[in-house]
Parts: sequence; structure tokens; C-alpha cells
Amino acid sequence: MSKEITSREKDYSQWYNDLIIKGSLADYSAVRGCMVIKPYGYALWENMRDVLDKMFKDTGHVNAYFPLFVPKSLFEAEEKNAEGFAKECAIVTHYRLKNDPDKPGKLMVDPEAKLEEELIVRPTSEAIIWNTYKGWIQSYRDLPLLINQWANVVRWEMRTRLFLRTAEFLWQEGHTAHATKEEAIVETEKMLHVYADFVENWMALPVIKGVKTANERFAGAEDTYCIEALMQDGKALQAGTSHFLGQNFAKAFDVKFSDKNNKQEYVWATSWGVSTRLIGGLVMAHSDDEGLILPPRIAPLQVVIVPIYKGDEEKGVITNKVDVLLKELKDLGIRVKYDDNDNSRPGWKFAEYEMKGVPVRIAIGARDLANNVVEVARRDTKTKTSVSINGLSFYIKELLEEIQLHMFNKAQSYRDEHITKVDTWEDFVHTLDTKAGFVSAHWDGTPETEEAIKEKAKATIRCIPLNNPQEDGICIFSGKPSKERVLFARAY
Amino acid sequence: MSKEITSREKDYSQWYNDLIIKGSLADYSAVRGCMVIKPYGYALWENMRDVLDKMFKDTGHVNAYFPLFVPKSLFEAEEKNAEGFAKECAIVTHYRLKNDPDKPGKLMVDPEAKLEEELIVRPTSEAIIWNTYKGWIQSYRDLPLLINQWANVVRWEMRTRLFLRTAEFLWQEGHTAHATKEEAIVETEKMLHVYADFVENWMALPVIKGVKTANERFAGAEDTYCIEALMQDGKALQAGTSHFLGQNFAKAFDVKFSDKNNKQEYVWATSWGVSTRLIGGLVMAHSDDEGLILPPRIAPLQVVIVPIYKGDEEKGVITNKVDVLLKELKDLGIRVKYDDNDNSRPGWKFAEYEMKGVPVRIAIGARDLANNVVEVARRDTKTKTSVSINGLSFYIKELLEEIQLHMFNKAQSYRDEHITKVDTWEDFVHTLDTKAGFVSAHWDGTPETEEAIKEKAKATIRCIPLNNPQEDGICIFSGKPSKERVLFARAY
Repeated sequence: MSKEITSREKDYSQWYNDLIIKGSLADYSAVRGCMVIKPYGYALWENMRDVLDKMFKDTGHVNAYFPLFVPKSLFEAEEKNAEGFAKECAIVTHYRLKNDPDKPGKLMVDPEAKLEEELIVRPTSEAIIWNTYKGWIQSYRDLPLLINQWANVVRWEMRTRLFLRTAEFLWQEGHTAHATKEEAIVETEKMLHVYADFVENWMALPVIKGVKTANERFAGAEDTYCIEALMQDGKALQAGTSHFLGQNFAKAFDVKFSDKNNKQEYVWATSWGVSTRLIGGLVMAHSDDEGLILPPRIAPLQVVIVPIYKGDEEKGVITNKVDVLLKELKDLGIRVKYDDNDNSRPGWKFAEYEMKGVPVRIAIGARDLANNVVEVARRDTKTKTSVSINGLSFYIKELLEEIQLHMFNKAQSYRDEHITKVDTWEDFVHTLDTKAGFVSAHWDGTPETEEAIKEKAKATIRCIPLNNPQEDGICIFSGKPSKERVLFARAY
Repeated sequence: MSKEITSREKDYSQWYNDLIIKGSLADYSAVRGCMVIKPYGYALWENMRDVLDKMFKDTGHVNAYFPLFVPKSLFEAEEKNAEGFAKECAIVTHYRLKNDPDKPGKLMVDPEAKLEEELIVRPTSEAIIWNTYKGWIQSYRDLPLLINQWANVVRWEMRTRLFLRTAEFLWQEGHTAHATKEEAIVETEKMLHVYADFVENWMALPVIKGVKTANERFAGAEDTYCIEALMQDGKALQAGTSHFLGQNFAKAFDVKFSDKNNKQEYVWATSWGVSTRLIGGLVMAHSDDEGLILPPRIAPLQVVIVPIYKGDEEKGVITNKVDVLLKELKDLGIRVKYDDNDNSRPGWKFAEYEMKGVPVRIAIGARDLANNVVEVARRDTKTKTSVSINGLSFYIKELLEEIQLHMFNKAQSYRDEHITKVDTWEDFVHTLDTKAGFVSAHWDGTPETEEAIKEKAKATIRCIPLNNPQEDGICIFSGKPSKERVLFARAY
């Protein structure tokens, strides 16, 4: 089976698609640009969602659900936001089908069932939510409003890729309302740190926290904070964003509150989101040419046990031993499966679970049992060790943590080695073309220069890192003076 | 606050809307027929979802996610299913907006961005899922396929009501594929029992399990099983359905498998779903004129503690005592809140939590503390008891179970008193007009009679109960012979 995966060296992009499809994470669908998230991929998403959901609740947020549709008049209320999404949205115009008189058995849109006002399938929910908040916020006592939503959204992208960019995707979007600018900025930054915590400690993926330039800001935001991760091909991936929206939506939807002095003020806003795109980043950052490598903390299956036997008697002896082990592992909260399916050989199973990135495989044969040992294989390093059955469950529990840490460290080393300081345009282009990764360079701070660099080098400013050191320098492109370096990269 | 709720006697329908809005479960939205599920209502749905999700997983199902959109050509493939939903579906016809040249700042649908094939926003997902299953099923080894999806769906209903009937709603839909008819029927019945278990033991709502008549079947099903609950106004509510789909979808989408003898056979299917509609049933079955009454097992908040004090010193003493109690209750897994907000008086808080249906309220005053007691109030019976603080947490834990049971028993008594056997048309109509509830009557088994009864008495056959006693009788409407009674009711 592993032979079917295209190698990274041969075709990185095809390698990625192979992993997603053959690793059973997702499948193509009959709908242009939309994917089916298969049970294994969805179990991964559920684990990620549950951890994030707890983090949101622990920081005082509650969940709610807002409509899928946004009436056009609300959609266009915040002009910049509308402009940012107008070119890529699915639009509902009719509410009924009827029998097609020319084609028996076929249906057609009923022209008499045209909506008075078109409905946009939400590409993001600021408009519908701020229109709702208008009715919920009167006084400072109603603030802050700290609401999150888990939902599907649709952006009609022209070029799509499984998980990384699909027309429909699953995400969460937090939408908060505050009495002061300061409080809203604190919230924006707090959620960025929550995202970084999640991606680093659960997905084993180091990130750089920063702020986007004006060009790369979310449509309708005053400031967009982001976390940026690095993939194995040296391209960057935006893994999450947190936006300080100022009073833009409050003004567009006329959401005011009376403060303690009974003065009417516009409300301050934030929004923040991560999506199933994270799964694409996870896959590209950690996997190898044999398949997925999933971090133990969010892997749907952490341990698989494969028996190696001849005949029912040997299998019975192994199974008796495994039953005890299964209970011990489950008692430690470990997600484990015993694959005693007779229809496949051990070698096939090994390849299958390697493909699926299960962090630890335990193989148990009759001879091993006689020696009171099993073979433990790590997916990340592909090392195999003979381990005593005594205390095995505790060994496995520690091993899972070790794998988690090792995956993070490996990704971090790679990332750190791929942040290159350059001071000239030649070095800049050369680095992007040969080494890739993040390129730390001086920029004169103008959108025009940023745009020109993007045009010429296909690289964008990923972020201005938080707590960025200030230093005098010369813009690599314009030669104008600069006060700090920013991080460029080619990106997904 | 309670004064603002319309009484059931005065206007049952308005009472229901008042409860939903003032109990903070949901709100109207700017989108026709769509609602906003507010944080309190969504927390209730999360609890319900989590219990159901565990039940599905315990019975061998896994979750996945399929696209929101169904291309028209797939939608119409299963003709009966298509016919059943064609008149009430939202249709995406365009994928881009552009600036309206006649109205600066406004947007319009870009006529050049018309889709080649229209997309239906899923009203249910059989079509998109069976089109996908076609690629996943080749051999008997791929079966059974036991997949569930949590999703939003859209049905463009003309008359909508919060939770009970909204254009968009949240639900789960199970879609399973089997090698044999028998196995598919077993699955259909199994999931009906799972639903009944959930609704009875978690929502405290007794249900009658049965089978729908041909007229009331899901479009595209061979058989529709259902659970039917009774509301306080004597109307029935379909609380969940489980469909045996035969080979209809397999044939429509050409999904075959090779059996053990290498023979190609069409796959057998089931689908089953419950939705946010359950919340409407929950509200209507249990609540009273003071507000919601939520069953403890799924209540977002099970216990609220309200301090009664004068000045900071008294409050401090109470809070110290409450901190210990809070920890004890949380350790027992109880969802509890201490409302020490200084901005509202105890009486206002009492009314607020009654409105929200919190099962148990604990009031603690300085004098109570001196006597080592607190006042415990039950929401369901509105009784108040003075209870010793010693062992209070265990008392509360038992009380929550007692309330759960009491709510179920009360609903069951009401339901049982409202199943009336009648043998004549006059009694039938009279019972519906005066007593309401389920009416058990003989029916000749023809769709024509069923339709005529519906027309004349506004009552439908809710179900033919499972294990229905067979007895000879005369149809109340046609006078023709009948072999069994069926349950009629006016329904939501």
C-alpha cells in the first residue's frame, strides 16, 4: 500500500493528496470544490474541536448558533467586509423546484419561487451576528458578550485543495462585543494565544505569532493577528487568525450601549477563527512518504495492537493476554484498538496503520508471549523495541507523551532552521527559490512595496512578529529606510 | 418577569413563544423562518447531542461530514425523495456578487456568475451520501457502513415556529448500508429504540413507538418508524424517525456490492434523524405558566445558589460556606452556579431561574446559616424545603434524580390519561375537540380513508404502534372491517 503514495521529492502536492485520500481523512465529492470528511478525518476533527471548545469555555466563552443565510442587505452593510467576500459567495435566489415540463422525471428551478431578497450562504458571520447583537446589547451590563459558533461556511474559491481550501469548510468563529477598545484588544490577543497553545501543544506544530500588514488584513478588521506555521516544503500556512474589528461592525449595524454615565457609545468587536484547514497543515507538517504521522494527543487512535499467530489456538492465547492489556490501556485513557481481523495479514495491517499515522503499534506473537515481551513500533521515528509486558501500559503512556514532544521538537528544529535573515533582494529571491521557509527582511512599510514584492517573488508578508525587535535597516526592495524586519514566505 | 408570560389557558401558542424567547433559548432572526439559538438553548442542545452521540457510538456508528449542497441531478435521482422535498428547498444559482452600477455601495447578483448546475441546500442528505457510498462499497467486506452526521439542513417551510418548524435546523442524520434486508430492518428498529431510550430517560418524555402509514412515510422510504410524544395541549409531536429505505437509494445511485458468492447485489439502506425540534417538544411537554421546566439530566444548569444578605460582611460569610458547597457539588458532577451578582435582588433572580427552568434552587441567608440550613426549592413541584447543610450535596444529587423521575411520571400519567379508545365517528370527533390526545380507533387501512379523516377532523394517524394488538373491528369512518386500532391525533 505504501508504494501507492507519491514521494514528497517527486511531487509534494500529489503526496499531500495521496495522504488525505489513502489515509482515509477525506474524499472528493460530486460538488465542485466540496469534500467529504471521512470518519477517520472527522474523528480527528472531533478531537481538535473538543480541545478547542474546552479552551474557549475555560476562557469564558459560550456557544450559540446563528443562521446559515445572510440577506444581501445585511451582507453589504459593512462595506469592506462585503467587498472582501462578494466575489466568492454562494447565493440562494429561489426556494422551490418544479417538474420540468420538457424532461419527464426531471426538476427545474421554479421561476415563480424567486426570493424577494437574495440570501448569501455565510462566508463568515459578522453581518448576521452583529445584526443580532443589536437586539441584545443595550447597556454596559450586557457586555462583554463572548460567543463562539461551530459551523459550516462557504467561500466559492476558484482553486480548491482538500482541507486547505475547500468551497465549504467547517470552522469555529468567535464574535465578541466589548465596552472599551482596550478590552477588545486584550480579547483579540488572548484568543491568539489560545490558538498558539492549541496548535503547539496538541498539534505539535510550532507557530509564529504576529500581526498582518494592512494588505493581508481580514476584510473589515482594524488589525488581524495570526499564527503562522511552516510546512515541510518550506511554505508557510496561516493556521489561525484573531481580528480586532474596532467599531466597524457596531457602526454598520448601529450597535450602541449606554455606559455607566448613561452615555451612548458604539460597541467594540473582535472575531477569531480556525477551521478544518488546520488538518491540512497537520498533514503537511508531520507526515512522511509512508503516510500520515499524527500527534498522539489528537490522534483518533493512539495505539493499535496486531496479533501474529498461526491458527486459532495461538490467536486465543494472544487474545487472552491482549484483553488484559486493552483494559489497562483504556483505564489510562488511551485510545486503543485490537485488530484481530482474520482477513488481512499482519504486514498489510502494519502498512495500513502506518498510512493512517497511528502513533504506536504493538505486535504480539506467540514466541514473544513465551518471552513475556511485545514489539513496540513508533510511527514517528519508525523504531521498533522489544518491551516487557510487565508495566507495558505505563510504558505506552509515557511513550505517547515522548512522541508528542519529539514531533514538536522536530518540527521546531526544521522551522528554526528555515528562518533566514537576508539583506539584499538577490539573497531574498535566492533564499525563496532554494531554501524556502520564512525570510526575515527589512521592508519600507508601504503597501506598494509589499504588492510589488508579492508580484515579483510570489512571497507575501506572513506577519510582523509580536514583540518584534526594532532595528534600523534598508528595505530589500525599495532601498528606503526601515525600522524592523518582517517575515516573508511563499504560502498556502 | 413571570407576569410577562402569556398563560397556557389564555393562548397556548403565545405561551410557547414567550417561553422560548424569555427563557433565552432562541431568538428570531433577520432571515425568514430561521432562528438564532441563544447560548442557553445551545447549551441544552449540546447536552442532548453529547448523550445521543455517545449512544450512536456505543451502537457502532461513526461520524462523518458530507457537503451542504446537492447538485440538482443528484437531488432528482431518487424520484420519490425528490418529489417530497422539491417544493421546499433553497436553491443556489450564482456564485458571485458585484457592485450594483445603479446603487453606489450596494451589491447585486452577478448574472455572469450563474452556476451550470443549480445546487440544492440539503433538506436531507440521502442523495449526496448514497452518491458517495457508491465509491466506498464494492464488497460485502465494506458492509455494514454505519455513519452518522451532525449538520444543519434547510427546508423552506411556509409556516415556521421556533424550534418546531424552522427553515434551517440542526439535526443528526444516520445513513447506514447493509448486505441484507433483515440486517437493515434490525438497524432501523435498533435506532428507534435508541431514540425512545434517549427521549424517555433523558428528556423525561414518554413516547409511543410505532410505524407510519404509507401516507405519512418519509419520501423514498419503504417503512418509517417513529416515536410520538404528547404535548400539554393534547397535540402529538413526532419526536424522531427511523427509515427502512429498502434498495431505493442503492438503485437510484447504482450502489451494488459483491456478496460472498461473488454475486452483485444492491445494498440495503436505513436513515434516521432527530433535530432541534426535540427542544420544542421538551418545552411544550414540561413547562408551566412561570416558565421552562428542564429535566435535570440535560439541563444546562442543574442547581443555582442564590445568597440572601445585607451588606458585604454577611455576603462574605455566605460565600465562604458556598465555596465549600460548590466544590462538593461539582465533585459529584453537578452543573451548578453561584449567582452573587449585586445588581439584582433575590426575588428577581428567583423569577429568572424559574423562567429558565433550573431544576433546583438553593437560597442561603445569614439566619439560615446560623441554623446550619438552606432553603431548597424544586422547580417542577415548586415546593420549598429547609435542608441541613450537612450532607447537602448528596441530598441534591438524589433530588435531581427524583425530579427527573417525577417529570417523567407526570408526563406519562398525562399521556396515558390521554389515550382514548373510540368506536364511532361522533366519539372520535368529540374526543378530538374536547379532550384531545391520542385517539385509538379502527381504520380500514386505505390511504383514501386516512386522507378523508385528515380532511374532516384535522387529525392524522400518528402511528400503528409496535406489537399492536390485533382485534376485529369496524373503521370509524368507512364502516369497513379493520384488523387493528391505530393512533390518531392532531399534531405539530
